[in-house]
Amino acid sequence: MKLSSAKAIISSIMHFPFKTVALVGKYNTQEISGPIVRLAEFLEQKGCKVLITVQTADRMGIPGFDSARLVDIGNVADLVIVLGGDGTMLNVARILAEYDVAVVGVNQGRLGFLTDVSVDTMTETLGEILDGEYTSENRFLLDVSVERDGDNEPVFHARAFNDVVVSKGATGRLIETEVFIDGQFVYSQRSDGLVIASPTGSTAYALSAGGPILHPTLEAMVLVPICPHTLSNRPIAVNSHAEIEVLVIRADDCNANFDGQRRLELKAGDRVRVRRSTHTLTLLRPRGHSYYDMLRQKLHWGEKL
Amino acid sequence: MKLSSAKAIISSIMHFPFKTVALVGKYNTQEISGPIVRLAEFLEQKGCKVLITVQTADRMGIPGFDSARLVDIGNVADLVIVLGGDGTMLNVARILAEYDVAVVGVNQGRLGFLTDVSVDTMTETLGEILDGEYTSENRFLLDVSVERDGDNEPVFHARAFNDVVVSKGATGRLIETEVFIDGQFVYSQRSDGLVIASPTGSTAYALSAGGPILHPTLEAMVLVPICPHTLSNRPIAVNSHAEIEVLVIRADDCNANFDGQRRLELKAGDRVRVRRSTHTLTLLRPRGHSYYDMLRQKLHWGEKL
Amino acid sequence: MKLSSAKAIISSIMHFPFKTVALVGKYNTQEISGPIVRLAEFLEQKGCKVLITVQTADRMGIPGFDSARLVDIGNVADLVIVLGGDGTMLNVARILAEYDVAVVGVNQGRLGFLTDVSVDTMTETLGEILDGEYTSENRFLLDVSVERDGDNEPVFHARAFNDVVVSKGATGRLIETEVFIDGQFVYSQRSDGLVIASPTGSTAYALSAGGPILHPTLEAMVLVPICPHTLSNRPIAVNSHAEIEVLVIRADDCNANFDGQRRLELKAGDRVRVRRSTHTLTLLRPRGHSYYDMLRQKLHWGEKL
Amino acid sequence: MKLSSAKAIISSIMHFPFKTVALVGKYNTQEISGPIVRLAEFLEQKGCKVLITVQTADRMGIPGFDSARLVDIGNVADLVIVLGGDGTMLNVARILAEYDVAVVGVNQGRLGFLTDVSVDTMTETLGEILDGEYTSENRFLLDVSVERDGDNEPVFHARAFNDVVVSKGATGRLIETEVFIDGQFVYSQRSDGLVIASPTGSTAYALSAGGPILHPTLEAMVLVPICPHTLSNRPIAVNSHAEIEVLVIRADDCNANFDGQRRLELKAGDRVRVRRSTHTLTLLRPRGHSYYDMLRQKLHWGEKL
Repeated sequence: MKLSSAKAIISSIMHFPFKTVALVGKYNTQEISGPIVRLAEFLEQKGCKVLITVQTADRMGIPGFDSARLVDIGNVADLVIVLGGDGTMLNVARILAEYDVAVVGVNQGRLGFLTDVSVDTMTETLGEILDGEYTSENRFLLDVSVERDGDNEPVFHARAFNDVVVSKGATGRLIETEVFIDGQFVYSQRSDGLVIASPTGSTAYALSAGGPILHPTLEAMVLVPICPHTLSNRPIAVNSHAEIEVLVIRADDCNANFDGQRRLELKAGDRVRVRRSTHTLTLLRPRGHSYYDMLRQKLHWGEKL
Repeated sequence: MKLSSAKAIISSIMHFPFKTVALVGKYNTQEISGPIVRLAEFLEQKGCKVLITVQTADRMGIPGFDSARLVDIGNVADLVIVLGGDGTMLNVARILAEYDVAVVGVNQGRLGFLTDVSVDTMTETLGEILDGEYTSENRFLLDVSVERDGDNEPVFHARAFNDVVVSKGATGRLIETEVFIDGQFVYSQRSDGLVIASPTGSTAYALSAGGPILHPTLEAMVLVPICPHTLSNRPIAVNSHAEIEVLVIRADDCNANFDGQRRLELKAGDRVRVRRSTHTLTLLRPRGHSYYDMLRQKLHWGEKL
Repeated sequence: MKLSSAKAIISSIMHFPFKTVALVGKYNTQEISGPIVRLAEFLEQKGCKVLITVQTADRMGIPGFDSARLVDIGNVADLVIVLGGDGTMLNVARILAEYDVAVVGVNQGRLGFLTDVSVDTMTETLGEILDGEYTSENRFLLDVSVERDGDNEPVFHARAFNDVVVSKGATGRLIETEVFIDGQFVYSQRSDGLVIASPTGSTAYALSAGGPILHPTLEAMVLVPICPHTLSNRPIAVNSHAEIEVLVIRADDCNANFDGQRRLELKAGDRVRVRRSTHTLTLLRPRGHSYYDMLRQKLHWGEKL
Repeated sequence: MKLSSAKAIISSIMHFPFKTVALVGKYNTQEISGPIVRLAEFLEQKGCKVLITVQTADRMGIPGFDSARLVDIGNVADLVIVLGGDGTMLNVARILAEYDVAVVGVNQGRLGFLTDVSVDTMTETLGEILDGEYTSENRFLLDVSVERDGDNEPVFHARAFNDVVVSKGATGRLIETEVFIDGQFVYSQRSDGLVIASPTGSTAYALSAGGPILHPTLEAMVLVPICPHTLSNRPIAVNSHAEIEVLVIRADDCNANFDGQRRLELKAGDRVRVRRSTHTLTLLRPRGHSYYDMLRQKLHWGEKL
């Protein structure tokens, strides 16, 4: 047991760590209703109280189980099982991060970085997890605020699990930004944009943009320029407790994206501030999980010679 | 004399190559009116007939010289002098490429790849060019057509000097494309987009996206993926006579950009075909011009040890 | 029939293109003796005169077929079948390039860029090739000369099919070079070295060093810096008819490598000149061969969506 | 005062932090004898006891000051001033890291990442430092051990400040390695080699090989593959407390380099283990020093717009 919350400690003492288990399905995807029902029944047999998110339960017409809103689930569940891909997990993580709840991801297709339990073996794997056979990882999130018109009071707040991306829009015109870290000027940059990624996000968009992989336990964020005009602009990894500030200098058309799922239009003069969130997501991994095995498989790296 | 057109040959025989010289100023930039007047007077003294583009003449209120539209200039001028940056030259080049007219670029600020005569020394340098002291380069353009709804008749035509870019729009969602070269399937790509650049464009956006530099005389185009999801997707240089086809498979929000100056919204199913244009631009270079000197200076490469 | 040589034309007229076929096996590899015997017998049945290189025949103890040295094979054979990997092909290609002989590669393991006939289906595929069902590609080679002590008379000559690499040696100290193209100074470079690759070599070491892929039909060479100290040093593709000159300025320990198979120690002051060889290798491809299919498979690129 | 050692605390209490100051000159460089004498006299005027390394004192014939060996200097000096470039600093750092001594670097030429006091302003700057006007950075070192023939007892030990590089030698043949982090298998790699860099080393060779910049305060090491055969092998940043193990699988010719200054020939089967050293170097920075200013200047990044 590595969960640090009081809830987890109590559960642990009671030898019944995951009493209430919630199920969250991929948004608007009918084909996972089968696995959800199977999983709900399996969990009941194991003696768990089962909750299904309202959205999933209603849309799929799954009767016979209690349903709850995602924010309420955060308060009452000990474990949340997400059925879908990494995109679904990102969505759920941004909301559940405020609660001390463990999360595990089940994937119907090709396994993801965050959803690494296969639907084909889910009852077996989840059975082991319920029995305490797992490791847990704490993944931190990013808090973002945007200031406008020189006003220190932010006009916008967001949270991201993977990354905050400040980038050009549809016109294709590059944007000009100034970057500051802990108040120190770093550089002016003319580019398609800038990715600020957590270790979790370092294997997502940041990697495509040429960034390094940051091990999940590294207390770091990485700034990855997207197609920078200055060829020597390279990714910079900084302490996760640094404050990163991106000042939009010139932009006909500029956006901030959060996990590629939320978006804000930016204007010249906007200041985007990114800090490590105090919240972390507790991700459970099946026994024998290896981060490097996952990387190797997904990136076609060489197996043992 | 390396100009191959009949007009050029006649001029050459007459020992008076650049009888009619046209001046094109950067759009909407008042500060170049001084240099334009100085240049016009200098050219008249040298015995040239001087034309100023209508737009430049009218907007800047330059009286005393004949003015003409850019397309008419193409028909009657022997030489066009462009005052502005590389952006102005791109704009002019796409139109003038249809005519056998030589072009030279004068720059007020930091010299560009295409505008390498400094405004400070322009009369001296242009005097030498008028006296035949120059080399000329033929730069080819790209012709683009876009087919929609499975119809072979294109719905859109464009020309580009630097590059054709198929890329994601404001939502930040990556796009999915299939690429074919000369009808052969190359790959499916999930990415921010794809740059197809001429040698001229290889030192522009394509370079920022990680592409190689193609020497201007190389009969090649280069495909440079922008932040591709598959990390082994690398730039591919192909023969300039190849036909490149980009089929948009999935895109919420996708655009084609031409030299970063014109834009077309694309839909899933659109086919963007890129071919070498039969037109080339004849770019005059001052005596002693070196492509590598220019690269070295602009990219901060090492001087002789 | 695309072979351009007189020998090929005559063969073509006679409707018997590949009368004499030679077999070359991978050096020192016992396990290909079986396939060689099978292939020799198959070729005899097809009415070909079969030759086996002396080295292969003697070492493997293959009796019953005529043997000849590789240089003699170049003179008398119409087709050379290479059994081995791309490395074997490189070795053979540098020697056979002087003769008008077609070459095809058979591979026992994972197919290579140059050896793309599988040993499992070789008789069927080669039968089709003997019947004229193939396409042919002309791949050019690189000629290298090295001048020393300011003497214009070269002290060394070599040929390369893939690449010429000037690089640091065992001490790990970076080297300093000056690069010239067609006599024009390009840059000084402090780096681990420089790869000069043909289109054939662009998918070999040059690709690992960050170079672009050059389509085999492109008349180009590419210069790819290896770990350059100046981060803006990017690959440059130039016309295949350019002369590339690398002047070693400072090097405790520096080498030139040719296809990674031959090596010369270099000293400060050495000038390495690389030019397109007048020789080309004629590589036969089975019907249906696609360069892009091969790239896609070897680089794990995305298949059709 | 940020020095954490007892010696520093005592000095601090006594309001005389740098009582004994040692001077170390670049090896074998006559031209720094002038600055060294000037600096020694300045320090004496400021009331410091001055020591000069034996090597520097003897070779340059600097009389009138006490001299001592570098290891003894570590024991008695409160501050060591290094005159030379970053290379000299690396050499000194590996030795002095075992002692609680602060170090500052003076550079005669272009300022380095570690030697950022200019010889032209050194007395002024060092005067301020002696007066307590400075910030200090703790930079960690890497400890390396090499095991051979399956024996757990290492046959070799080394220390590195910048990086440990396992790489191919003069033959130019790529090497095959297996990499493990904290005992977990990461990948097999065919490449020119692998750089394992500290944050300090991330702006040195690792950067040329395509690695990210790690901020000096980041508790991380980065693994950067050199020209990997597998194109998706990307830099990985891991916790500085991880143990990195490189197993040499196949290598005709392979070396380990430490800061590019020490070298060991490796054989197939050798295991190179890299761990964070318990030692750190205390680097003093003049008031107003900014890491990002330094990066910006050295990498030609954009100034404020």
